[in-house]
Amino acid sequence: MKHELLTVDDVTGCWAIMPTPSKPNASDPSAEDTVDLDETARVVEALIASGVNGILSLGTLGEGATTTWDEKRGFMQTLVEVGRGRVPIFGGATALNTRDSISMTKAAREIGLDGVMLGLPMWVQPDVPTAVQFFRDVAEACPDMAICAYANPEAFKFEFPRAFWAQISEIPQIVSAKYINTAALYTDLNLTKRRIRLMPLDVDYYAAARLDPEHCTAFWTSGAVCGPTPVIQLRDLVAEAVKSGDWTRAKALTDRIGLTYRTLFPNGSFKEFSVYNIGIEKARMDAAGWMVAGPCRPPYHLVPETVLEGARESGRQWAKLVAELEAEGGK
Amino acid sequence: MKHELLTVDDVTGCWAIMPTPSKPNASDPSAEDTVDLDETARVVEALIASGVNGILSLGTLGEGATTTWDEKRGFMQTLVEVGRGRVPIFGGATALNTRDSISMTKAAREIGLDGVMLGLPMWVQPDVPTAVQFFRDVAEACPDMAICAYANPEAFKFEFPRAFWAQISEIPQIVSAKYINTAALYTDLNLTKRRIRLMPLDVDYYAAARLDPEHCTAFWTSGAVCGPTPVIQLRDLVAEAVKSGDWTRAKALTDRIGLTYRTLFPNGSFKEFSVYNIGIEKARMDAAGWMVAGPCRPPYHLVPETVLEGARESGRQWAKLVAELEAEGGK
Amino acid sequence: MKHELLTVDDVTGCWAIMPTPSKPNASDPSAEDTVDLDETARVVEALIASGVNGILSLGTLGEGATTTWDEKRGFMQTLVEVGRGRVPIFGGATALNTRDSISMTKAAREIGLDGVMLGLPMWVQPDVPTAVQFFRDVAEACPDMAICAYANPEAFKFEFPRAFWAQISEIPQIVSAKYINTAALYTDLNLTKRRIRLMPLDVDYYAAARLDPEHCTAFWTSGAVCGPTPVIQLRDLVAEAVKSGDWTRAKALTDRIGLTYRTLFPNGSFKEFSVYNIGIEKARMDAAGWMVAGPCRPPYHLVPETVLEGARESGRQWAKLVAELEAEGGK
Amino acid sequence: MKHELLTVDDVTGCWAIMPTPSKPNASDPSAEDTVDLDETARVVEALIASGVNGILSLGTLGEGATTTWDEKRGFMQTLVEVGRGRVPIFGGATALNTRDSISMTKAAREIGLDGVMLGLPMWVQPDVPTAVQFFRDVAEACPDMAICAYANPEAFKFEFPRAFWAQISEIPQIVSAKYINTAALYTDLNLTKRRIRLMPLDVDYYAAARLDPEHCTAFWTSGAVCGPTPVIQLRDLVAEAVKSGDWTRAKALTDRIGLTYRTLFPNGSFKEFSVYNIGIEKARMDAAGWMVAGPCRPPYHLVPETVLEGARESGRQWAKLVAELEAEGGK
Repeated sequence: MKHELLTVDDVTGCWAIMPTPSKPNASDPSAEDTVDLDETARVVEALIASGVNGILSLGTLGEGATTTWDEKRGFMQTLVEVGRGRVPIFGGATALNTRDSISMTKAAREIGLDGVMLGLPMWVQPDVPTAVQFFRDVAEACPDMAICAYANPEAFKFEFPRAFWAQISEIPQIVSAKYINTAALYTDLNLTKRRIRLMPLDVDYYAAARLDPEHCTAFWTSGAVCGPTPVIQLRDLVAEAVKSGDWTRAKALTDRIGLTYRTLFPNGSFKEFSVYNIGIEKARMDAAGWMVAGPCRPPYHLVPETVLEGARESGRQWAKLVAELEAEGGK
Repeated sequence: MKHELLTVDDVTGCWAIMPTPSKPNASDPSAEDTVDLDETARVVEALIASGVNGILSLGTLGEGATTTWDEKRGFMQTLVEVGRGRVPIFGGATALNTRDSISMTKAAREIGLDGVMLGLPMWVQPDVPTAVQFFRDVAEACPDMAICAYANPEAFKFEFPRAFWAQISEIPQIVSAKYINTAALYTDLNLTKRRIRLMPLDVDYYAAARLDPEHCTAFWTSGAVCGPTPVIQLRDLVAEAVKSGDWTRAKALTDRIGLTYRTLFPNGSFKEFSVYNIGIEKARMDAAGWMVAGPCRPPYHLVPETVLEGARESGRQWAKLVAELEAEGGK
Repeated sequence: MKHELLTVDDVTGCWAIMPTPSKPNASDPSAEDTVDLDETARVVEALIASGVNGILSLGTLGEGATTTWDEKRGFMQTLVEVGRGRVPIFGGATALNTRDSISMTKAAREIGLDGVMLGLPMWVQPDVPTAVQFFRDVAEACPDMAICAYANPEAFKFEFPRAFWAQISEIPQIVSAKYINTAALYTDLNLTKRRIRLMPLDVDYYAAARLDPEHCTAFWTSGAVCGPTPVIQLRDLVAEAVKSGDWTRAKALTDRIGLTYRTLFPNGSFKEFSVYNIGIEKARMDAAGWMVAGPCRPPYHLVPETVLEGARESGRQWAKLVAELEAEGGK
Repeated sequence: MKHELLTVDDVTGCWAIMPTPSKPNASDPSAEDTVDLDETARVVEALIASGVNGILSLGTLGEGATTTWDEKRGFMQTLVEVGRGRVPIFGGATALNTRDSISMTKAAREIGLDGVMLGLPMWVQPDVPTAVQFFRDVAEACPDMAICAYANPEAFKFEFPRAFWAQISEIPQIVSAKYINTAALYTDLNLTKRRIRLMPLDVDYYAAARLDPEHCTAFWTSGAVCGPTPVIQLRDLVAEAVKSGDWTRAKALTDRIGLTYRTLFPNGSFKEFSVYNIGIEKARMDAAGWMVAGPCRPPYHLVPETVLEGARESGRQWAKLVAELEAEGGK
């Protein structure tokens, strides 16, 4: 099978992160086939119909940790079958070691995905040479698969320091990064020589685009599956602002999106959020009502009720924003 | 297959932790079959011949993270075939989620192992209810397999607090714990109601046995595969001391073992040790010369030379201690 | 003023850690003179009358952080005036830099204290050479003052690794350490060449004494000010056990003391305890009713009510143990 | 003394962070009067002459931790005497408790400073209510002194989460923040309702100004004392860009400044930098040659030579940039 490697130029616009929808019994440790493939298919079709530019999957909230390999394979097949090449779709290949990540990346390529979101092995805290060599080894073994570097310091026990970004920019397969509050975006843009699309979260996209409108042209969003309207509008308003120089509307929408996040972080803390992030994200999605994310798979299915309530409120606020934007005449 | 569940009373004496011996190409990420099964068989036979009371495997230094499932299975089969039930042997079942740990535990049972060393899923930092439920779920799904709780705070992002020990003591399958500097041993002994054999490291065994000679009757040692003589003598000297009340010789041997550790920890720091522990332990073993541990599997094969040199010196000191003890007339 | 330096041999038995009793308005940031010197005097007298072997002060629960220098001086003067040399009494000299710690240590010497409890400057995380040199510099500047090394990893951002203990054992002024990491006790005893009395917490004293009855002859206790009877009895029962070889009664009392701690740690976690430790310890003391510890000084006066309730229950359980032991015919 | 409280509108442009220049013997723990007041006066005069808009002092690299109170007072008096109100100058009031920070803030006000840089007490890790109440208490006790919130997560054991920023924006005295977490800048700007000037580092100023040119109008720089030309030009080029819409020159200068930082962070790691930051910053300044920062005060005077060499190279690169810019016709 011929397969053309994506480049950094193929990563633009609104990239939706979708969960791995689960059946009602998915929290039961004896359940064997927990992925709701019908809902998966419905969500992929609806995301593409809404106009998203790419789809990411099987990271943290995508339960890359807690789905079995058989489940991942079935899920990725559905992604590809429904997607039919209309937008780039990335699976996941994070594992406990290099060789398993290589096998998973190769399998994702066989299935027909365009790339994988890839985190570091996390049993032992890696130093910079170990982290860089890991990405290099996977990329060399899978030369025609794109990689989205998954830069989550809590999950992977890694600071993602400047030296890391400078060195992985030499790896052509790494075309993008799911990027959060790790360090100064501008510095990392320079270090990566703009060879990697550093994708911020939706609510940080306005800031990134103002900073470097030529390069900061894509963002990730788990809000898309709470209803895509706000993030599709955000993408378009930022594009208009880059042309016109008038950022007023992009900023106003960003602020409205920001307000939906107010109750998402328990006690306003990213660290506490990180302990329950899967349950928080899935509860937010289910409360928004655009899709059924379903229960969490073990062992991450036990989440305190107070934490869940903040997550649900965040989802309801997103749904309210969708309704308001549509009433205001957006799509 | 009938299978009798081990109890806490079956866990006594000297438990050797063995590595998963690797072939010369094991650091190559394209290598597929990296376990040296001949050396595995030789080491199991030699350990049993030396008189160890049990064997643990597939934890951190046992490269539970970086061996593939096929390699683990082949390795565990060799353990069972050579062991022939002469001593209890534990495999490993640490994974990224509950269901994979259950599958691995079931497979280890089919292969014929007596138990598994089991760590927590580590993608997300667990809270106490999540950690306890994880062990409960694996134990309930595998009622006739013994579990050694693997209490490593660095690897598993978990404090292993008092509430954890109190609650897992209710799970009958958990018969032992690989236990390190997490908290006060005496408190944890009480919290576990002495239903779990808390096994300290060899050099801490003297202390534990003085503290509670009735219950602290087992220890773990990665030194056994650097030459078993010191730890077999340690076990016997402690047993004699418990009877006689004269701890002089047990203490003196402990101090000699302690001296071999002096260069093992880079800059004397446990945190730095934890970054390179697999490479450190394997370099120590290879330098001691009793077995061939072989190169580390990726991504943990890059270790600074200064760190390795301290590890090798520790191995040479162990070998010297073996020679001295044998010259002094020990076995 | 001639002043004889204490030695490690002067540190034996039961060392009470006392708080700096506060007046009712002590949580008000505009309060200026918050130390209740009458209660201070009463407590010192009562502790000595009960038979404690030494007194420590001005550490964490002693509000070394939140008392002003004038308050510390007045408090230390009262300690000395009431103590009249009957038992060794240590003040506190932890500060943000070496020179302030030296000044405070010299002042404590002028006032007439026997030593100081000394923690590391904590603005910047120290490496081992920095930590060792700090203790060396204070000791050399104050050659006739004893130092109790305050080994609290949470407060001082320092791992207190093996290399640290080995090196500070060369400093003659360091006669003791307030020590927590019980599981590493035997190793650290060897590293310090038994030149430093490593004092464990009351509930860990039984374990330490069994381990090394010649050297582990002292412990610290904040329980003494909840009513000294249990810890005085503990000291005596351990001393009897060392002579007789029968540890039954020492062990039984240790277990009863341990039960009083059950609700002290929020969610059973030492890390959460560390966030509120001052408020927890003072609430426990006040609930036990033997002394008035009083409100916490700012900024550490805001403690969640659920945390306080666990602390108070621990204090009530200690008081109950005192009553029971006295009814059983102890002093 | 009447004293007009600064407002957020008074904090614009280039704010130089200056060290507390030390005499040659300053690393000696017995030295008593280590501040080089002549060099202090010279640097203040030269900074003002160069056109900086404000001066910050007595934070981490300003050795707020390791100067004595007498030294701080003498240093702050010199700042005020030389400054003569030409630019706002902030002293430091970080201490181990609320009341000491209040006393220091009041003293700084008496001396005539415009404000203080204020960090959190750091003995115990604060929760959000404790951190907020601390700032509230100092502000209420010193109503006519401006406060620059010193948001350093490593020094103060505090995540500085969203809830913190939202709550301290209600405190009128907090007019600015020394701010690091650039990636969360837009969110934190909204949370603070733009009532607090969040000042990024020089090399992050371009990014912040593009993001919110109306509010992000000030930055902090420790490079100013390596030679002010680059940061004065940066301020002016950004101001021109805001007017003209052409950011090319501001961006190009930012990139040149960024190149000077390449060797500043040991192994590219912010965590390692944080262990030696005082020594690193002072070595960089001394190597740049614009001022004499002098040796570090104890206990932070021991820095590995490899770390120092990277710092010195960074200083030499800054000096080279100064020379180049001046040759290109800047002042």
